[in-house]
Amino acid sequence: MLMIPGPTPVPEQVLLAMAKHPMGHRSGEFSALMAEVTENLKWLHQTQNDVLILAASGTGAMEAGIINFLSQGDRVLVGNNGKFGERWGKVARAYGLETQEITAEWGKPLNPDDFKAALEADTDKSIKAVILTHSETSTGVLNDLETINAHVKAHGQALIMVDAVTSMGACPVPVDAWGLDVVASGSQKGYMIPPGLAFVSVGPRAWAAYETANLPKFYLDLGPYRKDGAKNTTPFTPPVNLFFALQAALQMMKKEGLEAIFARHDRQRRATRAAMAALNLPLFGADDSASPAITAVMPQQVDAEQVRSVMKKRFDIALAGGQDHLKGKIFRIGHLGFVCDRDILSAVAALEATLTHLGYDQFTPGAGVNAAGQILLA
Amino acid sequence: MLMIPGPTPVPEQVLLAMAKHPMGHRSGEFSALMAEVTENLKWLHQTQNDVLILAASGTGAMEAGIINFLSQGDRVLVGNNGKFGERWGKVARAYGLETQEITAEWGKPLNPDDFKAALEADTDKSIKAVILTHSETSTGVLNDLETINAHVKAHGQALIMVDAVTSMGACPVPVDAWGLDVVASGSQKGYMIPPGLAFVSVGPRAWAAYETANLPKFYLDLGPYRKDGAKNTTPFTPPVNLFFALQAALQMMKKEGLEAIFARHDRQRRATRAAMAALNLPLFGADDSASPAITAVMPQQVDAEQVRSVMKKRFDIALAGGQDHLKGKIFRIGHLGFVCDRDILSAVAALEATLTHLGYDQFTPGAGVNAAGQILLA
Repeated sequence: MLMIPGPTPVPEQVLLAMAKHPMGHRSGEFSALMAEVTENLKWLHQTQNDVLILAASGTGAMEAGIINFLSQGDRVLVGNNGKFGERWGKVARAYGLETQEITAEWGKPLNPDDFKAALEADTDKSIKAVILTHSETSTGVLNDLETINAHVKAHGQALIMVDAVTSMGACPVPVDAWGLDVVASGSQKGYMIPPGLAFVSVGPRAWAAYETANLPKFYLDLGPYRKDGAKNTTPFTPPVNLFFALQAALQMMKKEGLEAIFARHDRQRRATRAAMAALNLPLFGADDSASPAITAVMPQQVDAEQVRSVMKKRFDIALAGGQDHLKGKIFRIGHLGFVCDRDILSAVAALEATLTHLGYDQFTPGAGVNAAGQILLA
Repeated sequence: MLMIPGPTPVPEQVLLAMAKHPMGHRSGEFSALMAEVTENLKWLHQTQNDVLILAASGTGAMEAGIINFLSQGDRVLVGNNGKFGERWGKVARAYGLETQEITAEWGKPLNPDDFKAALEADTDKSIKAVILTHSETSTGVLNDLETINAHVKAHGQALIMVDAVTSMGACPVPVDAWGLDVVASGSQKGYMIPPGLAFVSVGPRAWAAYETANLPKFYLDLGPYRKDGAKNTTPFTPPVNLFFALQAALQMMKKEGLEAIFARHDRQRRATRAAMAALNLPLFGADDSASPAITAVMPQQVDAEQVRSVMKKRFDIALAGGQDHLKGKIFRIGHLGFVCDRDILSAVAALEATLTHLGYDQFTPGAGVNAAGQILLA
């Protein structure tokens, strides 16, 4: 039972779709499949922009998003309040971009005012792009993309490039309504399919920048993906079986509906957080910036790694640990993608048993399950 | 029934392995799996070099092979006698390398003497790498890698970088015996698994060059893959389910044995070519440079696309067409990966029926099946 922020649980019908024998990718059948999934990806992204599909991890999509629309020496503003924000700065510098970082402590959201100040100070419009992570998987923090984006729009020149890897399919990322130029995501998250596919939506202002962008690229050059995508084909051999999985998963998502998907994630986030509070386990990060995908917990009188170990060995529930300096200090409960309300109760119940087993007595037995249950059935 | 050069047929047990629920990739179970497949990849490559696994198409692996070990302005010698050789020149130029191309007409092998001459002329050792495709999928030509490599070794400085996408697992590519510095391949070929994984083996001379190489890279930076690979983990989320498939397929390959795999491909190549000759269908390319993976045919009194269309519609056998200027002029029969001798007879029998149906009468009915059968059972 995967309660980690990816790979997330995969529905049986998606697994079975993936087990079909591959088809040739230069066939009419494959083109029909690609047309369908592309249309459904646009639905999920709430956009008419191109949504391109890469054989890569989410990092590959995000790198593609950065390197296709910028040039050597370009100045970019990078939001960094966790491992992924930090990574986008590294990518930008690896390609010779000049980065200015807006930082916040891990566990805290980026402050939109910091972006406002930096963008207003840029009177000669030298900032070419603002790059940030929407839901910071490493800490369970949701950054205020809508407000930050409004400041980018007020600047008027900079593109906005968003890592929506753990927010797409979990909370609203209305690409067209907000005018998001580049949005990257990955298959093993809200999409409910195994890792191996990544997605990047690209708007007209980004494509205009593409024309003069000069960073070197080939496999991640999005131009050919766009050109071939218009004919429902791909520049390189696509992971055909993962496309089968994507087709099945997007059909499920459409059936559930965007509003219902977002409401489910919101409900499970609130239930999980209420349970942790009832167990007197300190949440790492505040309620008003809590990710819909993952809840980070920083236990005080019990060891985070011991909790993870017992949960895994005795209840076959995989929780995520902390990364970098948070290693051993936090554990993270994923509630992203194919997670039902029962799964939340299962995880909380198993956590209660684990805590008791480890000698942690800072809660009334049943308090966590009760708190979660009340929210789930509210 | 896929008789194309990729995706190739996938065994049922590999499909079922792929349909397992994903596991967390930061788990001991995944590390054990990665240790096993890495060991088996080394067996297949006949090497002690690192063999790294990427979430990408074969092009991604080949690009990684090129950009990790070279620097801006480096001079490289690129073999180009088909679509893939042509592509590596494009990749090299996209990254600002200075390319000198050794060309041969499509359908003809690269002439090793051309490499010898160019390398001998390079008295100041300015050529940093020789880049070529072993089995040129677009034309069904196998280049004489062993002889070309000997000339590279005589040069003494240049690295050799090989696209073995349709030769790995089909004919010998003895990486250590030949001293091949960089070898790239892809999952949907001899590996018998669906597309989405790519492999690159890297030897010590290439790693030495890595230290000073300055081309920009992040997702395809092989350094982190090596570092994390040593701990049986990955820098980015791996396509877990394709790893399950890889594990099952490599176990099958080990059971069959390298010599038996190579003998099977050789036998099927010869049987296919004998059948085409018996049907008076001109082979595109000579016997002594025939790919073990694919046979290209240039029919004269019957239309190649009509042949493909009837084969697909009436017998559910997918053949590949020609690419670029060969489009409509050739068809290509794949015999790569999970192909048994019966499949060759099925394809030849269906081709005979198709040819007769299309009014082509330049053969004695049964001649193709007879010729193939004699070789298969010799």
